[in-house]
Amino acid sequence: MAILSDVATEALIPLAAAVGIAFAIAQWVLVSRVKLAPSSGRDKDVLADSLIEEEEGLNDHDVVVRCAEIQRAIAEGATSFLFTEYRYVGGFMCVFAAVIFVFLGSVDGFSTQSRPCAYSEGKQCKPALFNAVFSTVSFLLGAATSVVSGFLGMKVATYANARTTLEARKGVGRAFVTAFRSGAVMGFLLASSGLLVLYVAINLFQLYYGDDWEGLFESITGYGLGGSSMALFGRVGGGIYTKAADVGADLVGKVERNIPEDDPRNPAVIADNVGDNVGDIAGMGSDLFGSYAESSCAALVVASISSFGVNHDFTGMCYPLLVSSVGIVVCLVTTLFATDFFEIKDVKQIEPALKKQLIISTALMTAGIALITWLALPAKFTIFNFGEQKEVTNWGLFLCVAIGLWAGLIIGYVTEYYTSNAYSPVQDVADACRTGAATNVIFGLALGYKSVIIPIFAIAVGIYVSFTVAAMYGIAVAALGMLSTIATGLSIDAYGPISDNAGGIAEMAGMSHRIRERTDALDAAGNTTAAIGKGFAIGSAALVSLALFGAFVSRAGVKVVDVLSPKVIIGLVSGAMLPYWFSAMTMKSVGRAALEMVEEVRRQFATIPGLMEGTGKPDYARCVKISTDASIRQMVPPGALVMLTPLVVGTLLGVHTLAGVLTGALVSGVQVAISASNTGGAWDNAKKYIEAGASEHARSLGPKGSDCHKAAVIGDTIGDPLKDTSGPSLNILIKLMAVESLVFAPFFAAHGGILFKLF
Amino acid sequence: MAILSDVATEALIPLAAAVGIAFAIAQWVLVSRVKLAPSSGRDKDVLADSLIEEEEGLNDHDVVVRCAEIQRAIAEGATSFLFTEYRYVGGFMCVFAAVIFVFLGSVDGFSTQSRPCAYSEGKQCKPALFNAVFSTVSFLLGAATSVVSGFLGMKVATYANARTTLEARKGVGRAFVTAFRSGAVMGFLLASSGLLVLYVAINLFQLYYGDDWEGLFESITGYGLGGSSMALFGRVGGGIYTKAADVGADLVGKVERNIPEDDPRNPAVIADNVGDNVGDIAGMGSDLFGSYAESSCAALVVASISSFGVNHDFTGMCYPLLVSSVGIVVCLVTTLFATDFFEIKDVKQIEPALKKQLIISTALMTAGIALITWLALPAKFTIFNFGEQKEVTNWGLFLCVAIGLWAGLIIGYVTEYYTSNAYSPVQDVADACRTGAATNVIFGLALGYKSVIIPIFAIAVGIYVSFTVAAMYGIAVAALGMLSTIATGLSIDAYGPISDNAGGIAEMAGMSHRIRERTDALDAAGNTTAAIGKGFAIGSAALVSLALFGAFVSRAGVKVVDVLSPKVIIGLVSGAMLPYWFSAMTMKSVGRAALEMVEEVRRQFATIPGLMEGTGKPDYARCVKISTDASIRQMVPPGALVMLTPLVVGTLLGVHTLAGVLTGALVSGVQVAISASNTGGAWDNAKKYIEAGASEHARSLGPKGSDCHKAAVIGDTIGDPLKDTSGPSLNILIKLMAVESLVFAPFFAAHGGILFKLF
Repeated sequence: MAILSDVATEALIPLAAAVGIAFAIAQWVLVSRVKLAPSSGRDKDVLADSLIEEEEGLNDHDVVVRCAEIQRAIAEGATSFLFTEYRYVGGFMCVFAAVIFVFLGSVDGFSTQSRPCAYSEGKQCKPALFNAVFSTVSFLLGAATSVVSGFLGMKVATYANARTTLEARKGVGRAFVTAFRSGAVMGFLLASSGLLVLYVAINLFQLYYGDDWEGLFESITGYGLGGSSMALFGRVGGGIYTKAADVGADLVGKVERNIPEDDPRNPAVIADNVGDNVGDIAGMGSDLFGSYAESSCAALVVASISSFGVNHDFTGMCYPLLVSSVGIVVCLVTTLFATDFFEIKDVKQIEPALKKQLIISTALMTAGIALITWLALPAKFTIFNFGEQKEVTNWGLFLCVAIGLWAGLIIGYVTEYYTSNAYSPVQDVADACRTGAATNVIFGLALGYKSVIIPIFAIAVGIYVSFTVAAMYGIAVAALGMLSTIATGLSIDAYGPISDNAGGIAEMAGMSHRIRERTDALDAAGNTTAAIGKGFAIGSAALVSLALFGAFVSRAGVKVVDVLSPKVIIGLVSGAMLPYWFSAMTMKSVGRAALEMVEEVRRQFATIPGLMEGTGKPDYARCVKISTDASIRQMVPPGALVMLTPLVVGTLLGVHTLAGVLTGALVSGVQVAISASNTGGAWDNAKKYIEAGASEHARSLGPKGSDCHKAAVIGDTIGDPLKDTSGPSLNILIKLMAVESLVFAPFFAAHGGILFKLF
Repeated sequence: MAILSDVATEALIPLAAAVGIAFAIAQWVLVSRVKLAPSSGRDKDVLADSLIEEEEGLNDHDVVVRCAEIQRAIAEGATSFLFTEYRYVGGFMCVFAAVIFVFLGSVDGFSTQSRPCAYSEGKQCKPALFNAVFSTVSFLLGAATSVVSGFLGMKVATYANARTTLEARKGVGRAFVTAFRSGAVMGFLLASSGLLVLYVAINLFQLYYGDDWEGLFESITGYGLGGSSMALFGRVGGGIYTKAADVGADLVGKVERNIPEDDPRNPAVIADNVGDNVGDIAGMGSDLFGSYAESSCAALVVASISSFGVNHDFTGMCYPLLVSSVGIVVCLVTTLFATDFFEIKDVKQIEPALKKQLIISTALMTAGIALITWLALPAKFTIFNFGEQKEVTNWGLFLCVAIGLWAGLIIGYVTEYYTSNAYSPVQDVADACRTGAATNVIFGLALGYKSVIIPIFAIAVGIYVSFTVAAMYGIAVAALGMLSTIATGLSIDAYGPISDNAGGIAEMAGMSHRIRERTDALDAAGNTTAAIGKGFAIGSAALVSLALFGAFVSRAGVKVVDVLSPKVIIGLVSGAMLPYWFSAMTMKSVGRAALEMVEEVRRQFATIPGLMEGTGKPDYARCVKISTDASIRQMVPPGALVMLTPLVVGTLLGVHTLAGVLTGALVSGVQVAISASNTGGAWDNAKKYIEAGASEHARSLGPKGSDCHKAAVIGDTIGDPLKDTSGPSLNILIKLMAVESLVFAPFFAAHGGILFKLF
């Protein structure tokens, strides 16, 4: 019925993934042309040419050597932290894999006999025991892919940071291109490998499952769970790491000792830069990979019990993967607009160039979705809608994907409005610093609360339209639509911490003021795009978790989740509490780790002779160790809270209470996450606004070190754990609980609700 | 069937109310014995006796005159503010009354013909037009009662504050008794008059309605709406008033000028003391009166369509009122424990004495509930449960009331644990001040988030048990159970601001250090009890609004509120956003008004010669005016948001989306409210902990004026709008939207959802 044949689909998806990977490698090659070694004969002339405009002494052998040294220290710190983290989390993953196997295997008493299918009438499906095996395998596969994604992202970022610094000597445009290309390496690698692994897994699993698509795609959901579980620990651990170092470094360095950010005399400075890579890069990468994997799984599992699955329409079934494939190609074209079609000549062009990326990718993607919808879908099909089949047209589904895509753009722009210091909200917050830190915090909190309004309406409209058109499948593809430009989103996102690191390296290597100004300009634009990235992550998480929720209730055989039932309402109330419980843990962890860090930095300043004067050498390693230990130790309780809640609630209180918990956590968590991210971003940029002093108003508040600026620094510090630890981790909380419930749905449906059965 | 006859019920309720009012008057008489005039011949000897222990000069003519002067200034400021507020809100109330009439009248096209009853089969009920009339009347009645409650409370408090100061000269015990008795005047007046007006209204309405109890109790719900609407404006307006003055006074006085709190040189000091009375007293009074009225209405409206109503069992019908009647008597006995049975001799006995009030009243009330349940209820009856009748036993209903009562006690104690500086949470927050304001704020926010956990579980268990036993009626009576000791709760609550004012007056009148220490001790205990009071208010609001929600869906004829429907889920997501929108408005209002206040105070210090030296006189009136204007102007947008949301959603999107909005606002708002209140309370007491320096640890952080203390003051200032404006107003948000939906339910059911009907 569809124009695209199954064979073409089979070819197109891996092809798109391959193109994406090839593009990532090409970008890597381009970045690697910047040599992180003192220039030798061959490229001397080129460098000499372009460096003519700079002050003398910049092509100095020493500077390059120091950049390389610092880069190595950061890369080593990051690698060692990730290895430590993965070792601990790896153990946990193995235990959890065993839990999955035992719980799902017990659904049918570990029987190896085939059972009648639940949704394809009259057919036999594979035994539950084998679903347990394949779920466990795909769980481990998802976790492994997430590890690889995060790790590669970190490697690319630590590879690119010093290179961006060096390129900044030649002009802001070249530094921008280097940072952006490096971001693109990560973006495309992640998007493509996520797609490829999923595609290969489906094809391999099919060798066993054959016609039993229900079981096949039920097992595949383990992939999303694995990806998201890793992401949880990555986000929380990385978030605690980076913010403990950042807060600790700032509290002593900036506030007490009055030395600039990233000053090499500050013992916590390496830990701070490592943190950017493990938190903002590896954590963010795992997070968005998790969202992508989950929304694909949510779409696939609903499709498998709709007409696509029941009629074995492979192309229709693969629609979610095809949308992602088109996304890779669209993002590839979009990237060229930033790196090749136009050239950045001035710092003022950076932010518009990044924002243009969002618009271009969204516009192109709309056409791409239309094309693939026309090619891949039959004109009419049915979608499973809590017990009945609902008829949907191909253009209806196009609407769902497109509305998700555009809702993402709206969320991105609103986030920018509330967190960029080009607009009045952040300027108002900066102005409130006149009367001290307290009013700054009051205005910042109010800004964060207010910034929730439009994104929530955008999400609500997205939900209403896609839900009405195509039930939970509509929401899943809307989430996919929002994530379809993930490669571009991640490129922009990764660009920020790379620039941040580049600035830190320039400072530490003692490079000139002009270089630092360029990297600062890159970084400032990165702050806003980071907020936009978080907006996307949260918006997509809301849709994804709702889609997973829908898949969960479908799989658990629940037809109605009635608020007017005590089981559901207590779930709602308690679920809405979870984001608070979780935030309390993560905030306190950051606070406690920061206190440790402060004491260590103070100790070093007090005991190492000549440290303030620059003659003594700080003990960077101890600060790295404090951050590492604190984050490894403190990521366990919040991780356990998220991972255990669905298991405990589902087993003891059953699927209805669990459905309530998921809904409660979703509707409350999304608000906390958005407001926390934007409050933190606004404080950060209010501080930057005063520091930059680019307008009359800003200058009246500054300069650095004034009372206003000190009040702004306090706000910025409070915002750190909000925007980089609690806020973004909440995305994962709501998604992960939903996907975990989905994976364990057959168990809960069979054996859940023990407590209510007893009493 | 019940032991208590209808005639006895008819007599008992007004009798209890009369006893309560008589008791309040007796307490007033006792308080008024403290003369606020220089002692003349007759009572000279008595005073001379008791003042022997004090320093000389205290019985000075001047001090008493000054106390009286200051008291007059505060009372005048408060009265004038309330009059201004009531004038504006009064206009709004009239408009809204017209809206109620038009909307409800239009349900049946303004027809004056009787209709068949919806729940009593075969009977004729009164025309919708008359329901509209009586709803409007009861709305105005509720608003008027709320106004009187708030106003009387304010009058009592401003009458008692200076008297407490004067009594403090004679010992802490006498000051405590004066403050507590004054609180009791307000508590008993409010509880009794709320009950009495409701009772009289029911009896009067019955003259018209006769047998049509459905219509009668549907109309009565207007009483709750009126009470709550007034409370909204009282809380928001009063909250902005008090915090603008408080923050403004502190930021300039304490932080910039380094003068003590309540120093008469501070131009905002009178406004600050006025604020305590209009915000914490009048606002709190209206709020709890609203909760009480709403939970009674919710219980009555469900009862009217249960067997009580259908079979016209008057005693059973009046069970909610009987519970409240018993509560008045129980609280009366409890009060005597504080004022007469024991005597406070030392400042350390104050907090235990107040806490004992909670335990005594809860224990006695449990017995009281058991008694009245046994007397008033038949052994078995049926309760309306979304379309069917559910059989309930009298002891089942006792369990519902009792679980609400005890859940309140648990919430109270948890709140105390998280906000009193006797325990580790607040001490940890104080300790975080070592590294500055930022860590103080991070730890404080984390504390607030964490403090949500146990109250939510207590509420969830309460909901589950009472819902399972007796559907929405169970939840309504659980809320009533929590509020049954309202007279004691309000006494304790009002005691706090009165003591706060007493301290302010002592400072302003230039009384000795020892007097100020005594009033400070009273005030510190009041801080914790204020937090407990807020905990009660929020917990009861959660139950009340759920009960109202249940009554709303019953009245709107909704049988299922399915999360798995797009209309409901978008309501949930958007509803959960409302507390954030609302908080953004109120926080920013306080921030903006505080900035204005800061500028005015700074201006006065800069321009009035000799102000710092105490020779110039500040212009108190201008600061009072700034607070008044700001609060009147800025209470409109948040008020409009709350009042209009149910109307707009119900009319445009219909009852299902509205049900979602109510649920979302409830589950999200209760978390925001609890965490905001407790965070603010903890910061306040962390500051007090450092100031008091009662332990080795506390002394290591102090003294006043140290860096730690400054960091603590910043936290305290941030907490002000959280704990006294946003947090407590959110109770009203969730209750008011629910009761408004209930009142308009017939209209929404008949004409709502226009938007969905069009598309």
